Amino acid sequence: MNQSGGHELGPTVGMIGAGQLAQMSVAPATALGIRFKVLANNLEEPAALVVADTTIGSKDDPQTVLAFAQSCDVVTFDHELLTPAVMEVLKNCGKPVYPSPQAVIYAQDKLAMRQALTDLGIPCPRWSQVDSETDASIFAQEVGYPFILKTSRGGYDGKGVWFVNSESEISAVFANELPPGSHWLAEEKVNFTRELAAQVARSPSDQCVAYPVVQTTQRNGICSQVIAPAPDLDPQIAVLAQEIALRIARELDVVGMLAVELFDTGDGVLVNELAMRAHNSGHWSIEGATTSQFENHLRAVLDLPLGSPRAIATWSVMGNILGGDVPNLYSAYRHVFARDQELHVHLYGKVVKPGRKVGHVTAIGSDLTDLCNRVDHAVSYFTGEINE
Amino acid sequence: MNQSGGHELGPTVGMIGAGQLAQMSVAPATALGIRFKVLANNLEEPAALVVADTTIGSKDDPQTVLAFAQSCDVVTFDHELLTPAVMEVLKNCGKPVYPSPQAVIYAQDKLAMRQALTDLGIPCPRWSQVDSETDASIFAQEVGYPFILKTSRGGYDGKGVWFVNSESEISAVFANELPPGSHWLAEEKVNFTRELAAQVARSPSDQCVAYPVVQTTQRNGICSQVIAPAPDLDPQIAVLAQEIALRIARELDVVGMLAVELFDTGDGVLVNELAMRAHNSGHWSIEGATTSQFENHLRAVLDLPLGSPRAIATWSVMGNILGGDVPNLYSAYRHVFARDQELHVHLYGKVVKPGRKVGHVTAIGSDLTDLCNRVDHAVSYFTGEINE
Repeated sequence: MNQSGGHELGPTVGMIGAGQLAQMSVAPATALGIRFKVLANNLEEPAALVVADTTIGSKDDPQTVLAFAQSCDVVTFDHELLTPAVMEVLKNCGKPVYPSPQAVIYAQDKLAMRQALTDLGIPCPRWSQVDSETDASIFAQEVGYPFILKTSRGGYDGKGVWFVNSESEISAVFANELPPGSHWLAEEKVNFTRELAAQVARSPSDQCVAYPVVQTTQRNGICSQVIAPAPDLDPQIAVLAQEIALRIARELDVVGMLAVELFDTGDGVLVNELAMRAHNSGHWSIEGATTSQFENHLRAVLDLPLGSPRAIATWSVMGNILGGDVPNLYSAYRHVFARDQELHVHLYGKVVKPGRKVGHVTAIGSDLTDLCNRVDHAVSYFTGEINE
Repeated sequence: MNQSGGHELGPTVGMIGAGQLAQMSVAPATALGIRFKVLANNLEEPAALVVADTTIGSKDDPQTVLAFAQSCDVVTFDHELLTPAVMEVLKNCGKPVYPSPQAVIYAQDKLAMRQALTDLGIPCPRWSQVDSETDASIFAQEVGYPFILKTSRGGYDGKGVWFVNSESEISAVFANELPPGSHWLAEEKVNFTRELAAQVARSPSDQCVAYPVVQTTQRNGICSQVIAPAPDLDPQIAVLAQEIALRIARELDVVGMLAVELFDTGDGVLVNELAMRAHNSGHWSIEGATTSQFENHLRAVLDLPLGSPRAIATWSVMGNILGGDVPNLYSAYRHVFARDQELHVHLYGKVVKPGRKVGHVTAIGSDLTDLCNRVDHAVSYFTGEINE
């Protein structure tokens, strides 16, 4: 890998996408001494602001993606929303692509995911493809109201998901246009006590590591808080959740990070969704784990031995900063940092828009209540909900 | 700070210099969401490899430095080897420059430093400016042989420093050319038990934080190992060392990180050298402290409240990787990472040359012997001294 020109970097990992997940990959890529490049839509995307080797182009254009892939030693993603044409060129680009297009399909298409997990005997909510309002109504008669309708593709952060409280609401949901290649997926509304996430990393050599299972809290369909590890989780359920994630990673041949979002039903878990990349539920690992999810994703796609996923503190608490009334997040630092000398803040450099993920804060330590209070305070100050 | 074009970054910190210290500033600059730019001699320097906003130009050219400074909100450095002409333009560039040229002089010129510290009553080895071989001989009669001759400017990593064992060796040292503006500085050879370093951060608002005092081990004049905190250090001596560093920071008006290298004489400390920037003795803080030296340097020059310098583990051990027989450091990862899942590695992307600092490893935990063994093993494997 001794390249011309006098430097000595490791292989080139190319990431398709340049959001905050790509941006947070910069720190471990720099530490590892590898070459890291991103394909960005424009120079204002979070990773494009900081990555020396940024290619500007459409991640939906097959020729752009192909040229980008061929300039890398390994190709990976910070999202799963790839078009079928892009998936096709990546299959034949001559470079390793992780996760593979064959695996990514299960993170893109919730029907394919439900079918695959059901075939593997992995516990899921009751579900059915529904191609008509009548199908949906029949499904609802089985599972009861409210139930859930989802588009099989294209949804994220609560988008593409509807709660249906009565038969009369079905037609309004069906009036929404399906994204290309999508079908309607009906799922029972699980009576869960909380949501969990299990993250694992897996390398092409089939080495796997499992992070502690975390508790996630959603607000309006967007993750607002993560506690690692999930408080008061039965150790047997924690191991079960890790085993489910490890089994999915192996059976679906996922390489890189895999996040399995789970419903905790009180006596077990059901799989909600999958993400095959670094995930919001793992941001705590930057400061809270021996090896962050971003470093292990890079190590995995490079087929390097994985780093320990061990938590380095009793508790880690992560709070998302969603866009609020304050356009200038930087101006909050003087107050937030003066109040809390031990707080870790990540601001992504995105323009503040209501509800948009623009940053996150993490605190680690031994007093969970204190950590939650400090994280909540900082988040509320950044969003302008409080001003002291 | 809402700039045109759709992004929302904080103020611009410009760093003059693009070595590994600038490179390791990328991670906290990215997390803080500020704009970080570097002035590099060429695109192969460690920071130039990874920083999106890199200016290529000579850091010794006043006009280049002036133009760079005027494109920033705050100017800082990853080294102190500034020419007088560059210092002069920075004094009048109209932007905050931290540390100020007035302070940096004490890190550039060891005679100025010795005089200032002596005036402050801070304990130093016995020293004298010696302008002739006769002066040096007279000094040696006072302190005894061996003693030390240094050039007052331009030395680093053991360069510009000579041990003089007898009167007959003086003339050979004086035969060396003095760097521009340099004089000869004679110092007694201190009978120290070990070397220590005390690091502090200070902001323009005069907030200061002190890191745990560390033990440093030099090999051939280059730092090879750092243990944080220094083992078996008398708590009173630790506090004394921190107080010395805090006092120097305030009295010399240092803003940013200050490292004070110290000799531990067994019943006290004597100041060896100063560095006004992130320092090799603080690399452990990336993984081992709540806030790394690189983040606190950025926070300090931005006049933001400083982060906690607290160690997060009982012990942190850092080992420098000096260039050895193996040109391709990346190839060592498979073995090193497989052997030690908890090791943290930083490779700087520099071409391997004998004795050159090309990376470092850190391990944190509670068993100091185990940590030292693991760090030593990894360093020896990277340098090719061992191959298993």
